[in-house]
Amino acid sequence: MTHDLDPIDQTAVTSTPDPNADPASTPADRSRPVGQASVADLAFEPRRQVRIGLIGAGGRQGGLMSSLAPVPGAEVVAVADPRTEAATELSGLIAHQGKPRPDTYAGADAVDRLLARDDIDLVLIATPWPTHTPLAVRAMRAGKHVGLEVPAAITIDECWELVDTSEQTQRHCVMLENCCYGRTELFALQLVRAGALGELLHAECSYTHDLRAMLINDQPWRRQMHIDHDRNLYPTHGLGPVASYFGINRGDRFTKIVSMGSPNIGLRQWRDANVPAGDPRRDEVYQCADINTSLIQTAAGRSIVLQHQVVGPRPYDRRNQVVGTNGIFTDYPPRIFLEHDPVLGGIYGGQGAIDAPEEDYRDIDEYLPAFEHPLWRQEGDRAVASGGHGGMDYLVLLRLIQTMRDGTVPDMDVYDAAAWSAPGPLSELSVSNGNAPVEFGDFTRGDWKRNRPGIP
Amino acid sequence: MTHDLDPIDQTAVTSTPDPNADPASTPADRSRPVGQASVADLAFEPRRQVRIGLIGAGGRQGGLMSSLAPVPGAEVVAVADPRTEAATELSGLIAHQGKPRPDTYAGADAVDRLLARDDIDLVLIATPWPTHTPLAVRAMRAGKHVGLEVPAAITIDECWELVDTSEQTQRHCVMLENCCYGRTELFALQLVRAGALGELLHAECSYTHDLRAMLINDQPWRRQMHIDHDRNLYPTHGLGPVASYFGINRGDRFTKIVSMGSPNIGLRQWRDANVPAGDPRRDEVYQCADINTSLIQTAAGRSIVLQHQVVGPRPYDRRNQVVGTNGIFTDYPPRIFLEHDPVLGGIYGGQGAIDAPEEDYRDIDEYLPAFEHPLWRQEGDRAVASGGHGGMDYLVLLRLIQTMRDGTVPDMDVYDAAAWSAPGPLSELSVSNGNAPVEFGDFTRGDWKRNRPGIP
Repeated sequence: MTHDLDPIDQTAVTSTPDPNADPASTPADRSRPVGQASVADLAFEPRRQVRIGLIGAGGRQGGLMSSLAPVPGAEVVAVADPRTEAATELSGLIAHQGKPRPDTYAGADAVDRLLARDDIDLVLIATPWPTHTPLAVRAMRAGKHVGLEVPAAITIDECWELVDTSEQTQRHCVMLENCCYGRTELFALQLVRAGALGELLHAECSYTHDLRAMLINDQPWRRQMHIDHDRNLYPTHGLGPVASYFGINRGDRFTKIVSMGSPNIGLRQWRDANVPAGDPRRDEVYQCADINTSLIQTAAGRSIVLQHQVVGPRPYDRRNQVVGTNGIFTDYPPRIFLEHDPVLGGIYGGQGAIDAPEEDYRDIDEYLPAFEHPLWRQEGDRAVASGGHGGMDYLVLLRLIQTMRDGTVPDMDVYDAAAWSAPGPLSELSVSNGNAPVEFGDFTRGDWKRNRPGIP
Repeated sequence: MTHDLDPIDQTAVTSTPDPNADPASTPADRSRPVGQASVADLAFEPRRQVRIGLIGAGGRQGGLMSSLAPVPGAEVVAVADPRTEAATELSGLIAHQGKPRPDTYAGADAVDRLLARDDIDLVLIATPWPTHTPLAVRAMRAGKHVGLEVPAAITIDECWELVDTSEQTQRHCVMLENCCYGRTELFALQLVRAGALGELLHAECSYTHDLRAMLINDQPWRRQMHIDHDRNLYPTHGLGPVASYFGINRGDRFTKIVSMGSPNIGLRQWRDANVPAGDPRRDEVYQCADINTSLIQTAAGRSIVLQHQVVGPRPYDRRNQVVGTNGIFTDYPPRIFLEHDPVLGGIYGGQGAIDAPEEDYRDIDEYLPAFEHPLWRQEGDRAVASGGHGGMDYLVLLRLIQTMRDGTVPDMDVYDAAAWSAPGPLSELSVSNGNAPVEFGDFTRGDWKRNRPGIP
């Protein structure tokens, strides 16, 4: 599974909330209840060692463990999964890495027993999506900080529940959005922060990943999402990095979304070609559009194209494009075009014309000495060697553990988890209302206007 | 100008309709008035020679003449432009090509005098956008068929006026959308028609062309559009080819659009950096977003991303992407990925994974023997030699003249001109109404359901 961005496999840990819950059941904005406070500036308590409990012992958690192994100061003390075999296997994997064998909890009360311990600082949750918010809420209420696989929530109610719980418990809920730490994503972030792209205007991102075989053959809970929903099911891999570029919740915020679907054919077609007649899967009706495209507006007036396509033959692509008044960076493959060019020099000057050679994209190689992100300079070799998704998994875990040890604020917090997950239910609401524009809630309750730290 | 896709320069021919006319002043659909009939199947009267009158003697008309010169059976008999010098120069250019020198009309009544002639079969109109519809209407009322530069109309009222006039006069109004005849566009059309992409789902297109210098220095009427409008000012170069792929007005139709702008900075910034203080241009306020992005839905449920960006440093790009259940073609540079591959063989099979080499895009070279369009096979050398926009200009004129000589229906008609131009005013309406979805009118009045011929 290390070559695959899917967060988890079919480990079902707890009961599942209704995935059909109305995404519009709550007003976009809510005042902060008495007795809770913002976690925007909440620093972790510094500690030498971070003691970790794992909830979910599926393939994704195993992948995370490969990336966690070289992270200094991280110690897995417990594993919980209702399935005895999976839980034992994961503990064995960790022992096989030369680490102390964690305590292993299986059975119906596995999660309760793990959360009852008082020697756990951080819980890593890698389970099916519908269980993310319920488990994260339980973990925070048990006094643990949370590292949560993507997406953090699948309804707007869940987004608010995560925010309220984090504020009530003063525990962090950090969504493990590994793509924010991709090499080209962090390169683009450096371009943005150096002002090389000028004033930011627009971004495009996608999750384009052919998952037909996995959906039909391996992950019934994830296929169920295609039965229950017509939406962007998986917005955060694309949107998280864009949120870093735009400083979402850190000077800007998502304000509005409109969304549109294509016909829905691909998953049914693949199923019919690969599953024999008589199999119960042949009776399933998938309603999720093969391609969902959304436009998102921000408070600063910027626009974002956000796309989701997972049931058709297309090369893997996160698009990863950011456009400013001085030029453009776009990915797959990574390339760049700048007017005032701080690396190659010269000014292009706005005399645009077809075929003018000076108007071509350039490879990023010549720009890497100036704009390679410090995390990749310092940790790139270790990140790549660790494997998980080209090193992103190592870096997202490294930064979480580092900030916990240093006693600083995390790179990403519960407001980010909520804002980046919200386009799931909001895109469904827009599509089901004839592509009407839908407002984002302000999960920070006004705090987004401050330019506070994020990814270093 | 031959390397530039802009249709015309600043030749102002007649008085200008109010470009601020409310795009929503008319209902989306209108019943057909008594006394007019569809032109969907209207064949041209066959003729050995097509006698042509030119309205507008600016740079774009001169460019068209270079591409018209090698077209058999085309004879320019008259030129009209209020500016004596420009009109004379264009006539001289045609004479210099070894053709008979056309009669030349200048002054305020130039167009009237040209249209009063009874020996003109076709009028080619290349003038500033706000004059397109008024001039085309006058030409059709004078009994002439019309070849009209893009966009055909800038308000929805104008779209309907073109349709009604064409139906009343039974004269064709063919928008000269050259990009429909681009080599990669026609390659993609062959892929689509051969079924190589499977069932069609989605397309993306754009007009990304840095026009800052031209707008500020050369074309005040076009800069005025950026003062008066916040919209996709120039939708047809991207949308025309997509309309061919999807069979718009020929089995499918555009039903709905939502549109969103980015901040508007680029044109002001370039002006301030390049125009001295005190120049009256320094007082202009541009309201058009640097980047406008729209989503369009079709009756078949397909989705389209349509984009416009002309005031910032980005490499020229029309995107030109079409996605189906069997794969994707995308351009800039042209590349392709198919599951069931009729050329290279084999079945990819939906086992998508990052970095899987079999999941990469392929260059189109190996596919050209199977999917090069007959027009490019037969006319490609002549098209490229003629210059205009890489040969597209030659082919759009060749096909118009061919169908007029053969007495067949044109490749594109007034319904196409209206449908492809409509996203201009409709995107403005969506943006100004908070990104609300806006309905397209059905300019064919129900006739779109028939699968009738278009580009061969």
